[in-house]
Amino acid sequence: MPAVGARRWVIADGYIPEWSQGPAPEFSSHEAACILNAGADPASVRLTVFFEDRDPVEFALRVPACRTLHQRLGDLTDPEPIPPGLGYSYVVDSDVPVVVQHTRLDSRQAANAVTTTIAYPAREEEDA
Amino acid sequence: MPAVGARRWVIADGYIPEWSQGPAPEFSSHEAACILNAGADPASVRLTVFFEDRDPVEFALRVPACRTLHQRLGDLTDPEPIPPGLGYSYVVDSDVPVVVQHTRLDSRQAANAVTTTIAYPAREEEDA
Amino acid sequence: MPAVGARRWVIADGYIPEWSQGPAPEFSSHEAACILNAGADPASVRLTVFFEDRDPVEFALRVPACRTLHQRLGDLTDPEPIPPGLGYSYVVDSDVPVVVQHTRLDSRQAANAVTTTIAYPAREEEDA
Amino acid sequence: MPAVGARRWVIADGYIPEWSQGPAPEFSSHEAACILNAGADPASVRLTVFFEDRDPVEFALRVPACRTLHQRLGDLTDPEPIPPGLGYSYVVDSDVPVVVQHTRLDSRQAANAVTTTIAYPAREEEDA
Repeated sequence: MPAVGARRWVIADGYIPEWSQGPAPEFSSHEAACILNAGADPASVRLTVFFEDRDPVEFALRVPACRTLHQRLGDLTDPEPIPPGLGYSYVVDSDVPVVVQHTRLDSRQAANAVTTTIAYPAREEEDA
Repeated sequence: MPAVGARRWVIADGYIPEWSQGPAPEFSSHEAACILNAGADPASVRLTVFFEDRDPVEFALRVPACRTLHQRLGDLTDPEPIPPGLGYSYVVDSDVPVVVQHTRLDSRQAANAVTTTIAYPAREEEDA
Repeated sequence: MPAVGARRWVIADGYIPEWSQGPAPEFSSHEAACILNAGADPASVRLTVFFEDRDPVEFALRVPACRTLHQRLGDLTDPEPIPPGLGYSYVVDSDVPVVVQHTRLDSRQAANAVTTTIAYPAREEEDA
Repeated sequence: MPAVGARRWVIADGYIPEWSQGPAPEFSSHEAACILNAGADPASVRLTVFFEDRDPVEFALRVPACRTLHQRLGDLTDPEPIPPGLGYSYVVDSDVPVVVQHTRLDSRQAANAVTTTIAYPAREEEDA
């Protein structure tokens, strides 16, 4: 299959819940950036994470050809972890077209809550 | 009504929960690909499912003219079932325009959680 | 404000839960089509509802200028109600640009579940 | 990073739940407009809130350069608060490109429910 999607994606509402109920890892509160690379070349991906009161931080990921990556954002540690309990946003830049969807599982209360959205695919003509 | 939508759609976050609580089939944990074919011709649809650690698998579906199909992804068996508890993504290709929306019902805990998103409509000029 | 949005929108996953828990009307299971008409002219809106095994049904709505309408889909009765417990899809056609978002509140279990998505804005060049 | 996104965004389904369960502020029922300003210039933002039975109300916000803002809509007070328990919609206008995502946390019952969607990015050619 040819590569499909866009090279830049944006999620504006990131928030890693601070605690969990139920057995790990299935019910651990988390957020995941799900990235599909449907094409024949591996994707080098940069995540730029924005905060309300500090400078952005960049993370590097890699998605093999014809594979998906479900990356839990709380598992990122290099160069530093994303703090739970704080609002953030992130921009995904890839060197080949990919598709990005963001999901939060919140198990802070007795029953979990789940929410997802396809990220916003930024197009060149919309950038300043 | 003329056909409406796009011929290629993408969902990056697929995950079939591994168990359920509450009476079946209403509260069975599941994911559904909901496909509207508003036009006058039947739609031949191919689902290509991508995984993190294995090659993609293809499934064939058909949506009659002027009908919707709410396809539970865990019900697909030909050529093989999608394993629950694993992250996946999928691409929908149709020979006529359709609209695709993806929904997950997770009833692994005492109260169910539901999440939905319109899929990403891939456009020709975005492909590599 | 000038009118904003598109004249055709699509939701592929409609499903009105069959029962509810908790006090009505806040916790009644329901689905709502939320339609913003930001412009200076009233909107005449047609909802075409598609099913899996029967012909489509049309409903007429009206959204005043500079107003929003949060229409519970289970409240529609003319020409006939949408049956709960069945999968459906719908297309929204408006004579002026509007924006459509679809929300489901499912209170069939002890705690409610909520999910929402912006509808798919159909563009002319994508239609067959 | 250059600015990314669009200058106008729309959410059609706003509804601030009327009460909450669990400790504040984490489990207070709320809706948030999450706005990413990835660019090098601060964003002056206007929120125009539409109702079902009254005239629109405007609010002013500011998002610094390279920052995100997670604005709880129930915290707005100038010129007047958005009443809980009422359906509303809103349009976001920014003088520089931003990305907007809307999230509702509903903790009126024993377990919270969460839902989110990327807002609708209005493009010039779609306006009337």
